[in-house]
Amino acid sequence: MIVNEGTKRFLEDVASSSPTPGGGSVAAMAGAIASSLGEMVCNLTIGKKRYADVEEDMKKLREKCSEARERFLELVEEDALAFDKVMEAFKKKEGIEDALKLAAETPLATARECISLLHVLVEVAEKGNKNSISDAGVAALMAQAAFHSAMLNVRINIKDMEDLDYKSRMEEEMVEMREEMENAFDNVMEIVEKWL
Amino acid sequence: MIVNEGTKRFLEDVASSSPTPGGGSVAAMAGAIASSLGEMVCNLTIGKKRYADVEEDMKKLREKCSEARERFLELVEEDALAFDKVMEAFKKKEGIEDALKLAAETPLATARECISLLHVLVEVAEKGNKNSISDAGVAALMAQAAFHSAMLNVRINIKDMEDLDYKSRMEEEMVEMREEMENAFDNVMEIVEKWL
Repeated sequence: MIVNEGTKRFLEDVASSSPTPGGGSVAAMAGAIASSLGEMVCNLTIGKKRYADVEEDMKKLREKCSEARERFLELVEEDALAFDKVMEAFKKKEGIEDALKLAAETPLATARECISLLHVLVEVAEKGNKNSISDAGVAALMAQAAFHSAMLNVRINIKDMEDLDYKSRMEEEMVEMREEMENAFDNVMEIVEKWL
Repeated sequence: MIVNEGTKRFLEDVASSSPTPGGGSVAAMAGAIASSLGEMVCNLTIGKKRYADVEEDMKKLREKCSEARERFLELVEEDALAFDKVMEAFKKKEGIEDALKLAAETPLATARECISLLHVLVEVAEKGNKNSISDAGVAALMAQAAFHSAMLNVRINIKDMEDLDYKSRMEEEMVEMREEMENAFDNVMEIVEKWL
């Protein structure tokens, strides 16, 4: 069985009436899944005669995917903690603005990590085993969904913020990030389409 | 800790040099995550005075999300089994065409399940707790990514098929499904945008 008890429990935790883990943690988890799939493509390339000339590149890319996974898993936890602080601040009616900023910056970090991963995935798709090209595509789709999910979580946290300068700086940054993400995503999918 | 050992093991299994679980199973898992998040929005609506008039609807929607999750988890396993059969058929040089058809129809079933879920999510976003509107959006993004991921897996399996009639029937069906998916997805996101 692929779906083990722990994975079922994670899904139960998401589904439960507790607001954490919620969409922000799910965004980071989608990033972790994307990283893992990128790593698989590297693993299915390394050691293959046909791909001997990219062996060293693939080992470096595997390392980057593995590091990305670890970072995303930290962000799963950080997002839940940041949300808990927002709830606490609203209850105490104290420190709401600071709590909201942390809860906006955590998914922003997730989104940044998605962009880095997509840059890695361009190279994975380009150099990796072409029998696994659909897996590289799925990894990119998951990273893209993780990015957009993280953006929704930034937006819900800055929505009612009083610091309008901060809010508009965040909005500008999101516009730039979205463009960089879409470029990297399109680059992966162009390679995927060539082989499908 | 939100990320338990079993979930880490699932990610290790994806990342490993074994081709299963691969992109097809990940697509179905993304569907299961989307379903769980939809269920959370229902759970965060049920029992709230403000949403008393949609209580019965939300209970039905919760049930649908829960059933969708179970179905997606089955598809995680089925996709890996179908892929194993393709590998076996190629090794034996026997029954390749039939194995490819099963390996194409399994992600097609995942994609169909994504469409059903998106129809449910339209209602969840519409009637559910507006404090969780970003979660409804993340659920839709995950379902959309799961759909596109499943499509890549259909395409890689029909790519070299000899039965061209079958292939073109599948391609037509994919076009129709994509349209229905995008419509349902847009309907969710329109509601999400209104509240963000």
